[in-house]
Amino acid sequence: MSIQMTVAELAARLGHSAAGDAALVLTGVAPLESAGDSELSFLDSERALTAAQASRAGCLLIPEAVELSPGAWPGKCLIRVRHPRRAMAQAIEIFHPQPVAQPGIHATAIIGAGCQIGDGVSIGPQAVLGSGTQLGARTRIGAGCVIGDHSIIGDDCLLHPRVTLYAGTRIGSRVILHSGAVIGADGFGYVFDEGRHWKFPQVGWVEIADDVEIGANSTIDRGALGPTRIGAGTKIDNLVQIAHNVQIGAHCAIASQTGISGSAVIEDYVIIAGQVGIGDHARVQKGAILGGQCGILPHKVAKAGQPLWGTPARPLREILVQQATLARLPKTLKRR
Amino acid sequence: MSIQMTVAELAARLGHSAAGDAALVLTGVAPLESAGDSELSFLDSERALTAAQASRAGCLLIPEAVELSPGAWPGKCLIRVRHPRRAMAQAIEIFHPQPVAQPGIHATAIIGAGCQIGDGVSIGPQAVLGSGTQLGARTRIGAGCVIGDHSIIGDDCLLHPRVTLYAGTRIGSRVILHSGAVIGADGFGYVFDEGRHWKFPQVGWVEIADDVEIGANSTIDRGALGPTRIGAGTKIDNLVQIAHNVQIGAHCAIASQTGISGSAVIEDYVIIAGQVGIGDHARVQKGAILGGQCGILPHKVAKAGQPLWGTPARPLREILVQQATLARLPKTLKRR
Amino acid sequence: MSIQMTVAELAARLGHSAAGDAALVLTGVAPLESAGDSELSFLDSERALTAAQASRAGCLLIPEAVELSPGAWPGKCLIRVRHPRRAMAQAIEIFHPQPVAQPGIHATAIIGAGCQIGDGVSIGPQAVLGSGTQLGARTRIGAGCVIGDHSIIGDDCLLHPRVTLYAGTRIGSRVILHSGAVIGADGFGYVFDEGRHWKFPQVGWVEIADDVEIGANSTIDRGALGPTRIGAGTKIDNLVQIAHNVQIGAHCAIASQTGISGSAVIEDYVIIAGQVGIGDHARVQKGAILGGQCGILPHKVAKAGQPLWGTPARPLREILVQQATLARLPKTLKRR
Repeated sequence: MSIQMTVAELAARLGHSAAGDAALVLTGVAPLESAGDSELSFLDSERALTAAQASRAGCLLIPEAVELSPGAWPGKCLIRVRHPRRAMAQAIEIFHPQPVAQPGIHATAIIGAGCQIGDGVSIGPQAVLGSGTQLGARTRIGAGCVIGDHSIIGDDCLLHPRVTLYAGTRIGSRVILHSGAVIGADGFGYVFDEGRHWKFPQVGWVEIADDVEIGANSTIDRGALGPTRIGAGTKIDNLVQIAHNVQIGAHCAIASQTGISGSAVIEDYVIIAGQVGIGDHARVQKGAILGGQCGILPHKVAKAGQPLWGTPARPLREILVQQATLARLPKTLKRR
Repeated sequence: MSIQMTVAELAARLGHSAAGDAALVLTGVAPLESAGDSELSFLDSERALTAAQASRAGCLLIPEAVELSPGAWPGKCLIRVRHPRRAMAQAIEIFHPQPVAQPGIHATAIIGAGCQIGDGVSIGPQAVLGSGTQLGARTRIGAGCVIGDHSIIGDDCLLHPRVTLYAGTRIGSRVILHSGAVIGADGFGYVFDEGRHWKFPQVGWVEIADDVEIGANSTIDRGALGPTRIGAGTKIDNLVQIAHNVQIGAHCAIASQTGISGSAVIEDYVIIAGQVGIGDHARVQKGAILGGQCGILPHKVAKAGQPLWGTPARPLREILVQQATLARLPKTLKRR
Repeated sequence: MSIQMTVAELAARLGHSAAGDAALVLTGVAPLESAGDSELSFLDSERALTAAQASRAGCLLIPEAVELSPGAWPGKCLIRVRHPRRAMAQAIEIFHPQPVAQPGIHATAIIGAGCQIGDGVSIGPQAVLGSGTQLGARTRIGAGCVIGDHSIIGDDCLLHPRVTLYAGTRIGSRVILHSGAVIGADGFGYVFDEGRHWKFPQVGWVEIADDVEIGANSTIDRGALGPTRIGAGTKIDNLVQIAHNVQIGAHCAIASQTGISGSAVIEDYVIIAGQVGIGDHARVQKGAILGGQCGILPHKVAKAGQPLWGTPARPLREILVQQATLARLPKTLKRR
């Protein structure tokens, strides 16, 4: 499935025009450091300008702001675009079209009573749909997925193999769930009495809005009462834990192995690095940026629009001063 | 499956009596902040007294200690109980009865030679039981579970879909295992020699006592020699790692993403927050409380009955003093 | 399946000779503290000498350097070996032979078009092989595994139940993958533009070299472009995250819940403890040792052959001095 096209054809598909030998045939896409003379690469910012000029790439997507002095780009084709990384993403889709799943239900899939299955759906081998589930148009269910009773999944979703949805899960459209993700398991809720932990029933559910992607082996627990919610366009990496009744806003990005405790609120456009821990009932305000391994204590508020780091998390600058002071401290104390 | 009952009926089922309009029809349960005038909620401690009185909840479970001055609770029904949160758990079970699995073995399940299957067991689609496994009465095996050869599971257990037990796993009664949990995989044991790691065979097993619950995608490794043990009534959250030969006592609670290294001992009634790391051969004494993200070093002892925090973990008070001192330090040093 | 043999027979199989009553019948292997008088145990270093002499073990594997003064080991058989722990691993394999999987393809397995399946392969119930996959000789695929299209697996591999390989994964020989591992899921790559995250296509793949072992529920993402690579002989524990385009060398050991961010490079013979976080584009040089929960910042270099700890990670000695200084600081400041 090898795709080739001229620079002119590619530029046209991206809605731009090309400078240089537009008849050059491109055979693929590659990072700047390895791209060859028939490959497309991209220049993300002017910082990489020298590397881009020195690269062997036959064609480059470059920011509109970069000057086109011909001598500086000997033998290279250039396509100037508003956002080179996004244009590169589009070019990769063109050169690497994803295999289209054949619509249809595999003979070994188990379909419960009263399911509603949209047009163009594909359901893989050994998948199990509980009774009363609904699948929107063109949604693809991978091999070995288990969809609990009365779950609702929108249009154009992609569930990779071996995803579990517990009963009553509600998923929007264009949602991608990776293998091993478990959506809607019981929250960690108990009542301690008479020397033991009694289960506090977890009778809520999980709601995932449109355009969400959830990584491999991540877990999103159902609410104790009411929903756990993931807002539209939010992206969640692998091995992330989202506890019961957490409310996550729209367009957040949450990196691997982060854990968010019960009833925490994450507002829109929050960026969370890997291995972050967020305590129960904490609130992370809009646009906050949480550094790797940091910890937000229970019931605390992380302020909007600023980077935070450390445990307990504080403004990044403050933490960096503390760390530098601590590193010098043995010498500082000796000197006095 | 909408359940309704009068306050009088509910109070009777809980073994208590009600004050107020006991003929009021309740339609459900809800948290204090959202409960409506036909819903039940609860007051956990006297701190929430004002919120409870201001809430719209039609009926409240309240502690016996709270005074019943009628003017303070206009229009509310009250049920006084010893432990409101536990009574609330019971009430939720009454209003949200769980669907009863039909006993029986799905036609697509694979049952190995010589299995012993108790009365009233249900085995879901695509489940695989190895040879010589034993299932107690009324135990439910979800879709796609894989039970290794010669595993033994007690009565009234619930394995959600896609759980794996490796061969020889021993599980008590009333145990709940969530989707994606892997019980009995090989421990991480190697011998370094001649420039490479040689596998140290992991020939032990896992023993899980009665009334344990284990969260989604958690992993509990078999012993290298002998058992890894989880004591009765212990509750383990999602994405937790328990290494080979760990011994966990009874009635512990271990939150998400915590990792416990090989041969560590966790005594009874220990509480462990999220993302805690416990080194190999460490011992956490009875009733210790480990704060989020803290780390117990290998071979160390965490003392009984006290809260610990930080890495390396120390008594919470000491850590708080350190953190405050460090936060002030840049100013402190400037001042001198 | 109880195996018994005399000390003489065991010593011969290990290629050594025995001192003491070589006719003693051994019935099994056990740790030093619990071994009985018909069991084999081992003495790892001279530090455990007294414990070994006081133990009840009938036979001990001991280092060649230990003196054999007969009076010190009353009633014990001794087998002197170059590396007692490795000899113990061999002895355990002798006393606990693993059940041999019957070659063959279970009737419920789904085999895609154009698969090439080697001699002596076993494929378990409900396993799904995509089209064009290749399996080497004697490789075993557990129940419920899903192998994506055009994946290649070498000889003598063992995939435990419920492993997922995404399409195009390449695996060497003698590789062990534990249950729930997900190999080749999309990396966490997006372009932020126009107020939302657009997916950056992940069109690379995963390459796993010979003799690698990967733990339960670990996740290894495919490269965005090009491969994510795991070098020969590297061992990875449970719940570990390896992001897109990470390059891991040979003979590393990576403990549970560690996360390695995109494009990081881990050179040969690196040892990484549990819950470590490694930032994107960081490099960990040959033989470095990373302590539990430590953090390597993005783009940083961790120097070869030394132990590091803390976040941000520094040489272990420096961190220990810092921690001690900080612990004394409240008193130090008061005194002045």
